[in-house]
Amino acid sequence: MITRSELQLLRSLRDKKHREEHGLFAVEGEKIVGELLAAGHPFEQIYGTPAWAGRKTHEIGPADMQRASHFPTPSPVLAVGRIRRAALAPRELALGLTLALDGVQDPGNVGTILRIADWFGLARVLLSPGCADLYSAKVIQASMGSFARVPTFVAPLAAALAGCPVPVLGCALEGADIHTLPVPAAAVIVIGSEGRGLSAEVAGLITAAVTIPRIGAAESLNAAVAAAIVCDNLRRPRT
Amino acid sequence: MITRSELQLLRSLRDKKHREEHGLFAVEGEKIVGELLAAGHPFEQIYGTPAWAGRKTHEIGPADMQRASHFPTPSPVLAVGRIRRAALAPRELALGLTLALDGVQDPGNVGTILRIADWFGLARVLLSPGCADLYSAKVIQASMGSFARVPTFVAPLAAALAGCPVPVLGCALEGADIHTLPVPAAAVIVIGSEGRGLSAEVAGLITAAVTIPRIGAAESLNAAVAAAIVCDNLRRPRT
Repeated sequence: MITRSELQLLRSLRDKKHREEHGLFAVEGEKIVGELLAAGHPFEQIYGTPAWAGRKTHEIGPADMQRASHFPTPSPVLAVGRIRRAALAPRELALGLTLALDGVQDPGNVGTILRIADWFGLARVLLSPGCADLYSAKVIQASMGSFARVPTFVAPLAAALAGCPVPVLGCALEGADIHTLPVPAAAVIVIGSEGRGLSAEVAGLITAAVTIPRIGAAESLNAAVAAAIVCDNLRRPRT
Repeated sequence: MITRSELQLLRSLRDKKHREEHGLFAVEGEKIVGELLAAGHPFEQIYGTPAWAGRKTHEIGPADMQRASHFPTPSPVLAVGRIRRAALAPRELALGLTLALDGVQDPGNVGTILRIADWFGLARVLLSPGCADLYSAKVIQASMGSFARVPTFVAPLAAALAGCPVPVLGCALEGADIHTLPVPAAAVIVIGSEGRGLSAEVAGLITAAVTIPRIGAAESLNAAVAAAIVCDNLRRPRT
């Protein structure tokens, strides 16, 4: 039996404000919940209708699911997870590749970047507070399960990168050619916002600007596309 | 003075069926119309409210724009272009790099891929009829003006690629490593659909499968992300 206040809580999690207040987030959809369960994500609660064949902690009727759901057409499963905000010590950046997102606001881009970080085996993704909320449905959906596998941190980049023990590479329209740049074993790669590029405070912290050579006429590349090309270049064997 | 039937026509262009019937498409928004005009796109009509400072062929009042617009909050400009369907002779594929999209259904991905093709100076983009409609607002919007610069063709890929005079590379989860593949001066690179990959008929036509080495655990990469990484690899100097 689902209480009215429980339904209200579930519905409220569509808003960042309420997610922060309760320290909880909600994910809906058979595919994405299945992917996150397969990746071992430790959900607090899994509400499933009789039609949901996967693991559940609560059975919920279709009418109640309609009330709890954030979607006009609810799916048979809604899972609730706990928001985790880990602190990142600067010395941790010394190990592996870190992707740092400087105000990447589009949730589809943030989710796609988590998927890219997962594909290329990056050590972690660091998000500035101005990025799309990591716990929004769109970010989690676009990450295709990578949300559960990639270690993530949210922190002001100026503070997180001050005293960084490894190179901080900033992706920009002008800089060293990513094709010929010597590949560091550990580094932070900063991806700027879709419209404004790197913020002034972060631009002052980068040790080198790197660029993807352009042959044609497009003004810029999408943030996720740029992140992917940079990751591929840092992961390719150099002769 | 805008007639009622003119307003109806403009509104109808949100649907592919009506676009095809009239041979016309509509683009709204100051930024995207401005980008397309800057790229020299030959619009048939440009409806602008008094607030639109750019080139216009018709002045339209805000109330009529509200009626013509496809959006709840209309922009000050709506431009109408003519759909062009050029035929592609197989011998044309002999020149430069062609990106072929095999059922890429997400309009954001198709638009992003046009932007990538533009950035990397590809010769053309070929779309199977199962792809998102090239003339939909979302595709044009996501292309950020590249829609006006990249030559595009829509045709069944099996017919278009039969007898192709250059290598046809298919992007897949298993294949030759894109990092070490010899780079051809001219080639077709086929990107499969987001969910199903390459179609059976196209898989039979490829001369080599190519893959982006994976280090981590993500199941796949987004179609636009994969296209970008492949293009970057085909455009990098090889030693």
